[in-house]
Amino acid sequence: MKVLVSTVPFGEIDHTSRERLDRAGIDVSINPLGRKLKENELASLIKNVDVLIAGTESITSHVLDQADKLKLIARVGIGLDSVDLLAAKQRGIAVTYTPDAPSPAVAELTVALMLNLLRSIHLVNERLHRGEWQRYFGRRLTECKIGIIGMGRIGSRVVSHLTGFGCRRVMVNDLDQSFISDSTIRWEWQDKDTIYREADVISLHVPLTTLTKDMISMRELHLMKSNAILINTARGGIVNEDALFRVMTDGHLSAVGIDTFETEPYNGPLASIDRCLLTAHMGSMSTDCRAQMELEAAEEVVRFVAGKPLSQKVPEEEYELQRLVIEKIRDADG
Amino acid sequence: MKVLVSTVPFGEIDHTSRERLDRAGIDVSINPLGRKLKENELASLIKNVDVLIAGTESITSHVLDQADKLKLIARVGIGLDSVDLLAAKQRGIAVTYTPDAPSPAVAELTVALMLNLLRSIHLVNERLHRGEWQRYFGRRLTECKIGIIGMGRIGSRVVSHLTGFGCRRVMVNDLDQSFISDSTIRWEWQDKDTIYREADVISLHVPLTTLTKDMISMRELHLMKSNAILINTARGGIVNEDALFRVMTDGHLSAVGIDTFETEPYNGPLASIDRCLLTAHMGSMSTDCRAQMELEAAEEVVRFVAGKPLSQKVPEEEYELQRLVIEKIRDADG
Repeated sequence: MKVLVSTVPFGEIDHTSRERLDRAGIDVSINPLGRKLKENELASLIKNVDVLIAGTESITSHVLDQADKLKLIARVGIGLDSVDLLAAKQRGIAVTYTPDAPSPAVAELTVALMLNLLRSIHLVNERLHRGEWQRYFGRRLTECKIGIIGMGRIGSRVVSHLTGFGCRRVMVNDLDQSFISDSTIRWEWQDKDTIYREADVISLHVPLTTLTKDMISMRELHLMKSNAILINTARGGIVNEDALFRVMTDGHLSAVGIDTFETEPYNGPLASIDRCLLTAHMGSMSTDCRAQMELEAAEEVVRFVAGKPLSQKVPEEEYELQRLVIEKIRDADG
Repeated sequence: MKVLVSTVPFGEIDHTSRERLDRAGIDVSINPLGRKLKENELASLIKNVDVLIAGTESITSHVLDQADKLKLIARVGIGLDSVDLLAAKQRGIAVTYTPDAPSPAVAELTVALMLNLLRSIHLVNERLHRGEWQRYFGRRLTECKIGIIGMGRIGSRVVSHLTGFGCRRVMVNDLDQSFISDSTIRWEWQDKDTIYREADVISLHVPLTTLTKDMISMRELHLMKSNAILINTARGGIVNEDALFRVMTDGHLSAVGIDTFETEPYNGPLASIDRCLLTAHMGSMSTDCRAQMELEAAEEVVRFVAGKPLSQKVPEEEYELQRLVIEKIRDADG
């Protein structure tokens, strides 16, 4: 069995995942470039590989055409926007993921970005490090109207954290069943446009699909309050970066916190704007969550090699979603 | 009646406090230097002043010697380390403060600094703005053992916020009565040294008095874990800055978040250390809390001018504390 780990780092901060594979006698080779692979790089590395332990690099039909032996893609993480699920299914390649493990770390980073931007911490810190003492007035989370787009695993955790601050006004566009029964959390349902118009802080927690691509574009940005704060710890591409750059250079929006980008590593013009607080797709990168994600992926590989049933196969709805999107595009083209 | 406002800004972000004074026919003059006054500057401005609306500038017996007409000091804020209460009392000058108003903003800033440092947000943001994509692993608040020194108005609020993150291990050195009855918050009592030794994140919420001056000095810093995070949003001087600088340049402590300094505006060597996240004494500077603090101080002045009883006079314990400290110093000298 040849196992390739394309996601980096893997097993470095916490060795449990590597030890689990070692104990099962599974030898792995690690992405030799030490960074997110481009499509062609992955295509050339994937020949003769039986199992891929994958990050967020693109696993397209072109890549899979080269994957003559591949039988399992074990995604370390939750997003499936990078994987052509239908192409994998056609070739009989199973796909697993770790949908729960990253959520706690992403939710904490989200609240961290909110609080940071509300008090201009990154700006005042930079000035103080240059010897300038400038005091900024800020807003309190508790006083803000918060809008959460997407109330799945991460969005609902963000709302839970907000309750610890006594936030009184949380708008959500979606409902999570487990949430409705939790009486400590106060929220109101609103449609997306109302949230864009009324929220002081807007945070995105939806997957990237063709349906959510450019969900926040010029029209939506202009609906937002001129002093709104926008947070994207979900996926690049959900917010159209060109539109965001344009409205921000026009002075619109108080600030944004962006952890995920259309192209990563990011090296684009948002970096020229002080009001953009940028992090490097680190949502899931707390040591505990990353270790858990890696371990769950490693355990799938161990199960697979031992011929046991997989535990976290990507559910049929995800395939269905990709199928629907393709049909929609075909209909539009036709 | 001559009223001097030494704290700046005042009535700028929110005009309510100024309007309250205007409506009562009270004319005020504002600190002409637009920054925190030095002792001699205040001494020269305070002649002929009946009422002082004060910030954190030093109101010493030397200043009060020049205050031939002063009858009321209305502190905008909670800290009394800047006011020689006994010298004021001797001269028959009343002192009021606004002890509750700043707490919500200070508590939010404290949690903001914790989350920022746990995920290295300020560092990765700076790198991304320079075109460098570097991903940092971090820790989650939930996984950390948190130590709170001082469980008064602010410390207990910080603990409330932490419960929204599901923090399981919060150590406190002090108990707040209202807190004991709140079953949603889980904490354990520990002495200070145990907290310094065991906590991953230590946050200070005590007033500055001669008893707490240099409370965190070389000995205490060395008790802390080498990867501990220390937060001071209370007062400069509680942490000895020379000792902090020395241990940090030796590589001790993971990071610190400092909002308050021995001398402000701060322009010292901590600014040369990346792991120091520095803010400019902005704890209380959320628009809502600052407005509330200013309004409460303005209302005291209105009451005073109208000959009505003051509402938030500094309690006798605070005078007693300053008296005790002086006696302690005398005993030590004798």
